[in-house]
Amino acid sequence: MKTSIATVTVSGTLPTKLAAIAAAGFDGIEIFEQDFLASDFTPAEVGRMVRDHGLQITLFQPFRDFEALPEPHRTRAFARAERKFELMTQLGTDLMLVCSTMHPAAMGGIDRMAQDFRDLGDLAARHGVRVGFEALCWGRHVFDHRDAWEVVRRADHRHVGLILDSFHTLARKIDPDTIRAIPGDRIFFVQLADAPAIDMDLLYWSRHFRNMPGEGDLDVTGFMRAVAATGYDGPLSLEIFNDQFRAGLPRMVAQDGHRSLIALMDAVLRGAEPALAPVALPPPAPVGRVEFIEFATTPAEAPALEALLDSAGFARAGAHVSKPVTLWRQGRANVLVNTGEAGFTHSTYLTHGTTVSEIALMVPDAQAAFARATGLLAQPHGEEPAAGELRIPAIRGVGGSVLRLLDEGADLAGIWQVDFAASPAELGAGITGIDHIGQTMAYDEMLSWSLFYTAIFDARKAPMVDVADPDGLVRSQAIRAGGLRVTLNGAEARHTLAGRFI
Amino acid sequence: MKTSIATVTVSGTLPTKLAAIAAAGFDGIEIFEQDFLASDFTPAEVGRMVRDHGLQITLFQPFRDFEALPEPHRTRAFARAERKFELMTQLGTDLMLVCSTMHPAAMGGIDRMAQDFRDLGDLAARHGVRVGFEALCWGRHVFDHRDAWEVVRRADHRHVGLILDSFHTLARKIDPDTIRAIPGDRIFFVQLADAPAIDMDLLYWSRHFRNMPGEGDLDVTGFMRAVAATGYDGPLSLEIFNDQFRAGLPRMVAQDGHRSLIALMDAVLRGAEPALAPVALPPPAPVGRVEFIEFATTPAEAPALEALLDSAGFARAGAHVSKPVTLWRQGRANVLVNTGEAGFTHSTYLTHGTTVSEIALMVPDAQAAFARATGLLAQPHGEEPAAGELRIPAIRGVGGSVLRLLDEGADLAGIWQVDFAASPAELGAGITGIDHIGQTMAYDEMLSWSLFYTAIFDARKAPMVDVADPDGLVRSQAIRAGGLRVTLNGAEARHTLAGRFI
Repeated sequence: MKTSIATVTVSGTLPTKLAAIAAAGFDGIEIFEQDFLASDFTPAEVGRMVRDHGLQITLFQPFRDFEALPEPHRTRAFARAERKFELMTQLGTDLMLVCSTMHPAAMGGIDRMAQDFRDLGDLAARHGVRVGFEALCWGRHVFDHRDAWEVVRRADHRHVGLILDSFHTLARKIDPDTIRAIPGDRIFFVQLADAPAIDMDLLYWSRHFRNMPGEGDLDVTGFMRAVAATGYDGPLSLEIFNDQFRAGLPRMVAQDGHRSLIALMDAVLRGAEPALAPVALPPPAPVGRVEFIEFATTPAEAPALEALLDSAGFARAGAHVSKPVTLWRQGRANVLVNTGEAGFTHSTYLTHGTTVSEIALMVPDAQAAFARATGLLAQPHGEEPAAGELRIPAIRGVGGSVLRLLDEGADLAGIWQVDFAASPAELGAGITGIDHIGQTMAYDEMLSWSLFYTAIFDARKAPMVDVADPDGLVRSQAIRAGGLRVTLNGAEARHTLAGRFI
Repeated sequence: MKTSIATVTVSGTLPTKLAAIAAAGFDGIEIFEQDFLASDFTPAEVGRMVRDHGLQITLFQPFRDFEALPEPHRTRAFARAERKFELMTQLGTDLMLVCSTMHPAAMGGIDRMAQDFRDLGDLAARHGVRVGFEALCWGRHVFDHRDAWEVVRRADHRHVGLILDSFHTLARKIDPDTIRAIPGDRIFFVQLADAPAIDMDLLYWSRHFRNMPGEGDLDVTGFMRAVAATGYDGPLSLEIFNDQFRAGLPRMVAQDGHRSLIALMDAVLRGAEPALAPVALPPPAPVGRVEFIEFATTPAEAPALEALLDSAGFARAGAHVSKPVTLWRQGRANVLVNTGEAGFTHSTYLTHGTTVSEIALMVPDAQAAFARATGLLAQPHGEEPAAGELRIPAIRGVGGSVLRLLDEGADLAGIWQVDFAASPAELGAGITGIDHIGQTMAYDEMLSWSLFYTAIFDARKAPMVDVADPDGLVRSQAIRAGGLRVTLNGAEARHTLAGRFI
């Protein structure tokens, strides 16, 4: 899989974007003229900058309002195209996206458009470049990939191909399986985007609400299965306009993008298709339960936390053999209170104050879950276990805290008995286990968190709901992965009660 | 006119909201239980806080999922209502909003609902309070104010009335003139909100995109004319859920709200209705032209600015008699370069660096335009003129710069001749006048700016467009008031080229 991302997806200046995209592991970018129009860089310098980051320019876009124009518009459109071809040569890219026209003078007519593209193909060939035609779902005459394909088919030119975009197909509820009739070598490029299921004007929806595959409600997996069935093996490119991403951190957005593509292709390969590439990652698994939650605190602040636990019916049930960690139990709910003054837990305390530093999840196969998570770009968390302590795989969550991955083979009873010399849990106030975890983040980061959980585990999202917080609106998203239920609360950090937990 | 605003419209904690709402000159608030649920204040204390700000609680809201329920839901709903009535007594308010049910068990039936409201009216009467029924446009059975009115009419109870909301009526494209058939004394409350014309799921649109009357595209004026025709004279209350307002400054949002209500009632009274109150403000007038633009700078930075003017074809045409201000002219375009080291212009320089400090607009009647602007809460700008200098009315714009208001009676020729000993303009590079002004602001503040211009002048907005800035998206809104064209560019301050001008 060759991965690509449109520069518009990520915020910042061009150098910032390129650094973030390269760091996230993409192979290439779609470039927009706006990326460098106002900069001091020449197109040749921009091309070098891109290649210096180990990236290639997979696509130059967009070229608008080209096809089916009467004169004198038609001649002008060809002159405009020729200038872009020259620019592309300087940039060092060979493919231009032509999106279906919205020009008020455009006449339509499949054969007229095909003739225009045949002539454009001749011009492109003279410049050593290619053009791809994409149906915008709000296009004036062409707004369905089947019509765009008919234009390309009739243009019948080696330098003219089709460009598909999951949003444009799925937003119009066009059956993606219609793609299976298109030859893979006639598809020059594939753009991918998801979107939440909010009924809305298509153009507005596209410009502000697109998100990464898996972050929304469109069947991008079904779309991509159809694309894969054609034999297409070109770049898979994210072209995502989203107000949250524009406010987000470039590196986080770029990494989410790469994660979403890995998860998407994993889901595609796991589908019923024969003859596709082998699956690289272990399958997503549900979580059995939350085995324990650890708080980072200090000897000075621990008594207040422990008094709270006591008042909620927890009882002190043991202490760690080698670390200043106490175990509090009630039913199957285990809470660790860590007052250590070294290591990760302590640095978590120093950053956030008394807070949850670690959550331990029981999964069917901890090593497989760890392999899947790291394959999906989760950061492994590895502190060397002290002598006599068990080594258990762990990853860092989006907010930086640790997710420990346990399985029944890990001799859990051993953990509690060996590490904690724990006494059995008592009934307490009637709490029987940890049934959900509430996590609060800036609204801008909410999609990152939901993608993290849904990509790594076998998880389902509930519809997002708006919650009236005393000081403003909070978007709340529940995610369930077997016995793990997470409630993500996206808060406007400045104004809400929930925001105080960020 | 008694003005009110829902606390949800403004961001911040309850004390912040109350201070902002009181400072903006409102008479009352709609209160939500969420406002104080998580606070340490008792309802009685909240009521006192509100009254200490000189405000009254015009409405307690919302009470959901009340009508047309089967048992045991019905009995529970009445018990719930009674607790709210007790709470209202503690708060010191006598009106509760009941919005049309979305309960899955609700059976519908106009007479069943009327009976429920008659019984609720009896309960309300025992507590000395009243209830108003509002049709949510996404309600399960009642989503049209005409049906809500039929329920209220049949309930036929002194303590039960109708609540109207411009959004719920206009979002469903219900003709607001149907309101004229409703007796004004049966309308207990009127909520006002506008919204941009984006085709979208009604609930999502309402929760995130509502804005102040005049900021959107709905015919709130037509709605309010119909309400006024009924004889209704209760509060006009803004209930506006908007993501920009949530991110905005509470005082600015509250002041915009009051401004929008003044402008709305001005437009309503200016309509063809007989027998309404007299019009308080001079009519909105178009701008003839931009007469001059003044830059604040310093002797050190002025040469660079003047070199730029020179290269654009401007010529130095005079100097102020008493201030260090030079006049640059080309055609009808006049630019002042002010290097004064005292007064408003200099403090503008100290805050922003070299920047536009003043824009002078030619209007039909400067005193009338000034009276209208200050009546619409614009801040008057008054520096004492130096001896021999003319006094010309001026106001502060949203961003703090000065808008000078000139008219032909102001002896303009005199200004240039007396104050500047100016020579006539030359042709220069062919610039004939100032045809538009570009202003850039944080996206959150964009509606404030457009409301300012459209409320004060006789202005029209063009549809908002998204502009691809090199580093992100900019929303651009053109406004035309006669010879004044303003392009507002709402930028994500952090990320865009346009943002660098903020």
